[in-house]
Amino acid sequence: MSTSEKEVPEEARQEVAGAVRRALAKHGYANLTTSQIAEETEKSEAFLFYHYDTKDDLVSAFLEDSIGWLDTRLKLTTDELETPDERLRALCDIMLAIDSPRAMQGINIAVMELLSHAPHKESLQEPLRVHQDYVRDRLAEEIRAGVEQGIYREDVDPESSASFLQMTLDGSTGSVLSLGMEDVGEDIREEIHAYIDGLMVDKK
Amino acid sequence: MSTSEKEVPEEARQEVAGAVRRALAKHGYANLTTSQIAEETEKSEAFLFYHYDTKDDLVSAFLEDSIGWLDTRLKLTTDELETPDERLRALCDIMLAIDSPRAMQGINIAVMELLSHAPHKESLQEPLRVHQDYVRDRLAEEIRAGVEQGIYREDVDPESSASFLQMTLDGSTGSVLSLGMEDVGEDIREEIHAYIDGLMVDKK
Repeated sequence: MSTSEKEVPEEARQEVAGAVRRALAKHGYANLTTSQIAEETEKSEAFLFYHYDTKDDLVSAFLEDSIGWLDTRLKLTTDELETPDERLRALCDIMLAIDSPRAMQGINIAVMELLSHAPHKESLQEPLRVHQDYVRDRLAEEIRAGVEQGIYREDVDPESSASFLQMTLDGSTGSVLSLGMEDVGEDIREEIHAYIDGLMVDKK
Repeated sequence: MSTSEKEVPEEARQEVAGAVRRALAKHGYANLTTSQIAEETEKSEAFLFYHYDTKDDLVSAFLEDSIGWLDTRLKLTTDELETPDERLRALCDIMLAIDSPRAMQGINIAVMELLSHAPHKESLQEPLRVHQDYVRDRLAEEIRAGVEQGIYREDVDPESSASFLQMTLDGSTGSVLSLGMEDVGEDIREEIHAYIDGLMVDKK
């Protein structure tokens, strides 16, 4: 049984995930120790060791929790929206994260760092794939609904278009969030909508 | 005077840049020491210390060199191509790096890691901005020529379209190069060409 499946109360899990995110931002993944994570939470290091065997269990728990956090946040926004097209654009805007809370920007930057370590750190690969698949599936779901409802063209491939949008959102983390190139962020937001309008919306 | 401006023979500079790239891949940025970089080259640690004051001078030198390396490689490919449209597509294919040598993939992954540290490491921000600007300008240059020659539509904004393509290329590093999601890579390549065909090429 993976340690991340051991029963950890929901509130504690969220607190631990936040601590991992903050510790990653301060120390980076390669340098990260369990005691640095403990310093970012009110839980003791003993509590962390009881529930998580290794640093990588803690990092996996952070990635799992960030999917849950993102899912809740995306649902809150999209539940009010009526069409798949409105929902898709809202998902892109949220994940672009320009005006998002620091926590969300921190998750995006932490995921980017973990991705850079994945080639040499096998234990990171599976939780990161799950994370990337979640985002792609969430985007593809709206695109598929849009095609079915005749909003998007029949020849739009939901998976390919979702991957393309996801790569653009992932790539913006470096320039827009890490380097603060805000003009790039505004350009990207407009180009995403132009892509949806020009290549996906059915104009017939 | 920045230490990276001290005169280092070209061949040695390239060797040092390669050593930084390999050391980054093995140890990550946060953990990186000058002696780990020295281990990746035939130069002595004394040689490195003579030419570069700090780890960050070595990292800056790596980023500078990677622009030079990329520039040479891009020129080699595009010099044979006649139209800005062919050149733009070739630039995107090369930078997508799916079939590229490991060195190029390693540069993309190293840049992604450095971007993740930039928010908390001011000395990384300027060399990374220069790197990002170089790529955007290179793409924008071909798009601008395409607009001027009537290949691309008049209302295409070279900077915005270049930024959009750059974000897609940057984002693919995580999923395609780090996690080896090759199906995503193929999808992205096709979608990039669809974007150029659908939103940029002048069909009148």
